[in-house]
Amino acid sequence: MSVERTLHHFPLDPASRQVRLALGEKRLTFSEVQVRYWERPPELTNLNASGLIPVLIETHGEDEPLVLCEARAILDHLEEVNPEPALLARDAAERAEARRLLQWFDRKFEFEAGGYILHEKMEKRLLGMGAPDLTNLRQGRDGLREHLFYVDRLLQAREWLAGKRLSLADFAGAAHLSVIDYFGDMPWADFPAVKTWYMKLKSRPCFRPLLTDRWPGLTPAPHYDDLDF
Amino acid sequence: MSVERTLHHFPLDPASRQVRLALGEKRLTFSEVQVRYWERPPELTNLNASGLIPVLIETHGEDEPLVLCEARAILDHLEEVNPEPALLARDAAERAEARRLLQWFDRKFEFEAGGYILHEKMEKRLLGMGAPDLTNLRQGRDGLREHLFYVDRLLQAREWLAGKRLSLADFAGAAHLSVIDYFGDMPWADFPAVKTWYMKLKSRPCFRPLLTDRWPGLTPAPHYDDLDF
Repeated sequence: MSVERTLHHFPLDPASRQVRLALGEKRLTFSEVQVRYWERPPELTNLNASGLIPVLIETHGEDEPLVLCEARAILDHLEEVNPEPALLARDAAERAEARRLLQWFDRKFEFEAGGYILHEKMEKRLLGMGAPDLTNLRQGRDGLREHLFYVDRLLQAREWLAGKRLSLADFAGAAHLSVIDYFGDMPWADFPAVKTWYMKLKSRPCFRPLLTDRWPGLTPAPHYDDLDF
Repeated sequence: MSVERTLHHFPLDPASRQVRLALGEKRLTFSEVQVRYWERPPELTNLNASGLIPVLIETHGEDEPLVLCEARAILDHLEEVNPEPALLARDAAERAEARRLLQWFDRKFEFEAGGYILHEKMEKRLLGMGAPDLTNLRQGRDGLREHLFYVDRLLQAREWLAGKRLSLADFAGAAHLSVIDYFGDMPWADFPAVKTWYMKLKSRPCFRPLLTDRWPGLTPAPHYDDLDF
């Protein structure tokens, strides 16, 4: 039975990007609805009580549509229902490592680095809250460098973030870093292993739609869509 | 091959409690190391770069031990390796609903309710930071009531949080609420469906160890370990 999918998302939201990358890598087609989540539209809160994007709606023929909320729940569902290509290794240790890093990016990295930068440079713009607070921005950039040292060290010893194979952890990392890169805040030159890894990801077909994302009033850094940056 | 497990955790940490409940429900034995995570001990940061508990170490005979970090990664691993009793439904919609609620409790609920209350009433004590800030505490309590209305509404229509069967979502919810209850901040009387559901969970064998948890200087509410509260 054919499945129709609709993704409710915001192009510059890291959680939404994780799901778009996984859908793209698995070659699952979907239509999209771009959501101005910061306005808390009732269409969104009716779908997801937390008011968070992304939300994926799957329609299987005449059945009741399946409404999938929260990024991690969507990723787990996609992996279970469409297991090939696999985005988690078969090996228990490498699976656990991918899941550790998923949570690390979505909590530790986002709280201490990405969240500050995106709040100051993106959300304040979207909300009409004026210029970035430079103290917060500096805190975010300091956190970013600290966390990139850690990611760089991992990638010096591994082909992909969780080990030998591409996994959800790589998409989580790339989703978070790509939005920071859109705003020109990625210090690529100081983290060569991260840069090499990101170049590999950036040239995959699943990444292409992200590189064409633009939002009115938010101009990307000049190198944002350059594969050879 | 027999598996030996050691859980590094803190008794009053909601994430640690989720894992203890899942281990208990699956009747998996483990030894425990209680971690003073707020002191950021090197034994912990050597195990988990994020410095977060819980960490579960599995030793399989002579093999290299498997170090499992971050609560969600541990829960997913336990579910895959020890599938019975199942803590996720077979049905895709109910699985997705459980995972939505897992993320809802760990982000939305913790950020807007539990995190405030536990920071003011627990972490400040542990860190020697003095008395709770009443504005923050009020914000946490207001968030708690708002979120309990939502949980109560769900439970009026369902036997368990995610639907027909007990799942990881129930343990996530119970883990968060049980710590708030330790500090006497659960307004049970106003949320009868939540109270009925919590009574069912509280009387399960997996819950017993949590009811005996105590920490020096942190006295539980008198009804904390009362099954008929």
